[in-house]
Amino acid sequence: MAILQIGAGGVGWVVAHKAAQNNDVLGDITIASRTLSKCEAIIESIHKKTNLKDRGKKLTARAVNADDVDALIRLIDDVQPDLVINAGPPWVNMTIMEACYQAKVSYLDTSVAVDLCSKGQQVPQAYDWQWAYREKFEQAGITGILGAGFDPGVVSVFAAYAVKHLFDEIDTIDVMDVNAGDHGKKFATNFDPETNMLEIQGDSFYWESEQWQQVPCHSRMLEFDFPNCGTHKVYSMAHDEVRSMQEYIPAKRIEFWMGFGDQYLNYFNCMRDIGLLSPEPLTLHDGTVVQPLHVLKALLPDPTSLAPGYTGLTCIGTWVQGRKDGKPRSVFIYNNADHEVAYEDVEHQAISYTTGVPAITAALQFFRGEWAAHGVFNMEQLDPDPFLETMPLIGLDWRVQELEPKQPVIHLLK
Amino acid sequence: MAILQIGAGGVGWVVAHKAAQNNDVLGDITIASRTLSKCEAIIESIHKKTNLKDRGKKLTARAVNADDVDALIRLIDDVQPDLVINAGPPWVNMTIMEACYQAKVSYLDTSVAVDLCSKGQQVPQAYDWQWAYREKFEQAGITGILGAGFDPGVVSVFAAYAVKHLFDEIDTIDVMDVNAGDHGKKFATNFDPETNMLEIQGDSFYWESEQWQQVPCHSRMLEFDFPNCGTHKVYSMAHDEVRSMQEYIPAKRIEFWMGFGDQYLNYFNCMRDIGLLSPEPLTLHDGTVVQPLHVLKALLPDPTSLAPGYTGLTCIGTWVQGRKDGKPRSVFIYNNADHEVAYEDVEHQAISYTTGVPAITAALQFFRGEWAAHGVFNMEQLDPDPFLETMPLIGLDWRVQELEPKQPVIHLLK
Repeated sequence: MAILQIGAGGVGWVVAHKAAQNNDVLGDITIASRTLSKCEAIIESIHKKTNLKDRGKKLTARAVNADDVDALIRLIDDVQPDLVINAGPPWVNMTIMEACYQAKVSYLDTSVAVDLCSKGQQVPQAYDWQWAYREKFEQAGITGILGAGFDPGVVSVFAAYAVKHLFDEIDTIDVMDVNAGDHGKKFATNFDPETNMLEIQGDSFYWESEQWQQVPCHSRMLEFDFPNCGTHKVYSMAHDEVRSMQEYIPAKRIEFWMGFGDQYLNYFNCMRDIGLLSPEPLTLHDGTVVQPLHVLKALLPDPTSLAPGYTGLTCIGTWVQGRKDGKPRSVFIYNNADHEVAYEDVEHQAISYTTGVPAITAALQFFRGEWAAHGVFNMEQLDPDPFLETMPLIGLDWRVQELEPKQPVIHLLK
Repeated sequence: MAILQIGAGGVGWVVAHKAAQNNDVLGDITIASRTLSKCEAIIESIHKKTNLKDRGKKLTARAVNADDVDALIRLIDDVQPDLVINAGPPWVNMTIMEACYQAKVSYLDTSVAVDLCSKGQQVPQAYDWQWAYREKFEQAGITGILGAGFDPGVVSVFAAYAVKHLFDEIDTIDVMDVNAGDHGKKFATNFDPETNMLEIQGDSFYWESEQWQQVPCHSRMLEFDFPNCGTHKVYSMAHDEVRSMQEYIPAKRIEFWMGFGDQYLNYFNCMRDIGLLSPEPLTLHDGTVVQPLHVLKALLPDPTSLAPGYTGLTCIGTWVQGRKDGKPRSVFIYNNADHEVAYEDVEHQAISYTTGVPAITAALQFFRGEWAAHGVFNMEQLDPDPFLETMPLIGLDWRVQELEPKQPVIHLLK
């Protein structure tokens, strides 16, 4: 057995550690990235934390340009993996899927191929490019598992679990995500600042009244009492799983909500107001041309640098309301992740941890044959039970909280 | 008679208009700047507003590099002015003073030569370079008038007026500056963003207990009821006239205060926190090197563009407390300037207007022989009466408000 992991950023860091802790199942591990030294740094950390379970299996670093399909195919032919785990940024999904298709090897990723805030690739179209591979993968006899992080990912498994065990009929699905941790910086992003800033300034899309609803960012807000994290303001946002849930789970409303502190939003609004979040070229007085967003990226702390000393919990979950046995029901299925526990385990923070652990949990389902049908699948489509049984063993537990059935008070802002 | 004006930014714009309105006294006007088209735009505006009083006098544009002493001397030899008015940025003061000294022609400027926020050129040293010309100017038989704007400038004339007419003994001098106008932008600076942002993030210096006190920016705040503008928060800041008043007017405390709205400070703090106000080079991920402050400058509106549609008043004045005839006394000597009135008069906003009007008022005192002694002078040293008699005729009136004697409540922040 063998896996090939592509990507050596924050998520790649955790995926590699978790793969190493489970290499008795996953086999030899190859970590590939444009920058070889980033792969080597991860391998050094794995050895430092003695996270390589079966020391007889290989753990290797390789350089690859993930934009280059032919280079990817050559690497796959060389490594001969059973599964390619794409832990890179969204914009390499399509080249890696194509390479997997041509090389006839199964594929897994943690987020959708598009940026969700550019016209034509927003939520309603988000999966068009990847779903176009459904038949191809089936015919090639390989498996594609899409969006196998926490959100997207586990939150869809929670929804599938609700459908399978908790509800006869579903009215609303609200994915709730808050990071109540503290990294000690006045302003920083938990993952790539460019991706993060583009994502949170895009319009939100949610599904309601049997159609897509489009609203400006931060214009729909509600307050939610997150277990062990307290009440937080969350804002409607475009997110991958809104699209895939709408495809596979009938509901009257499906929406994604992310918590932003007032201070975070204040920084965000200031930066947006002065034009610093723009990806458009700006000419300085000396003639230099820059993208303001690239300047911001260079100013902000490297997200990886936040991990040591990061304290507090995240809470991400799926809030489902509907009916069971004729009675109204409201449940919140969730995980709390602890930044310090994540750092102790794999030397990274909980934002990357909550993405990396599910990816390896899903990979284990694939290797065990539970999630190994031929074709391309989102997490909602797959049996939630074996996944949810495994995930706590890999590092993230989950709970079901019964709530008083009641639709949330949604504040319309601006 | 003739004047040579150097500088064609916002202040230069107003200085030129006001010179034109008074060219029966000042004579031929030459406007020189690095960029000839900026001078020509001003001349076009002067003709459009029919502000050239004596149409028999010349109004000419010239190009000059104000960093080049020899080029300045050649221009002076060519133009043969009686007075050089420096309306350029502070960093050209020394080359223009040197050129005036060598060419034996009198000199006037509107702000001190240094940036006030770099170590070694802060308030205590601010005038060292320009005051070094005192004897040279005296021996050359020429006049140098320093800091002849509103603040620095008129606020020092107000202080001299208080010394001459209103007080036997002075305890405290607080220069108060608020812009209660509205330019309709979420965030913009009223003059060059680079100069403005450097100025307001520098440490404040004030004179108290017979020594210089140094404190971080925005760490001393008081609330003051400005005539016709209401109560505003003002913050202790480094400013030119604190140094010159300390040199020439005995007082227990001398301090400069500038009004910043909570929203302005919020933007400022966000930008500072993320590092956008830094003049230090920053390397982007693609290797491009930029100064963050230059990026901000390119992002923000050109201050000149704010003038049309700018509404509301400024209020700048000198609050003097002490004793007269054995009784405590507290007076605020001030001007209100109206952005719309300024625009109607000279097609610019009140921030530049309040600097340009005093410069021409001072120039008129020089031409009338009232302020024409040989040497280098700050405004505190000169007879306030003829200046204050002239200024309302040039566009800015002034009033004396008697206040209840009471030291202000100074809030220490952070």
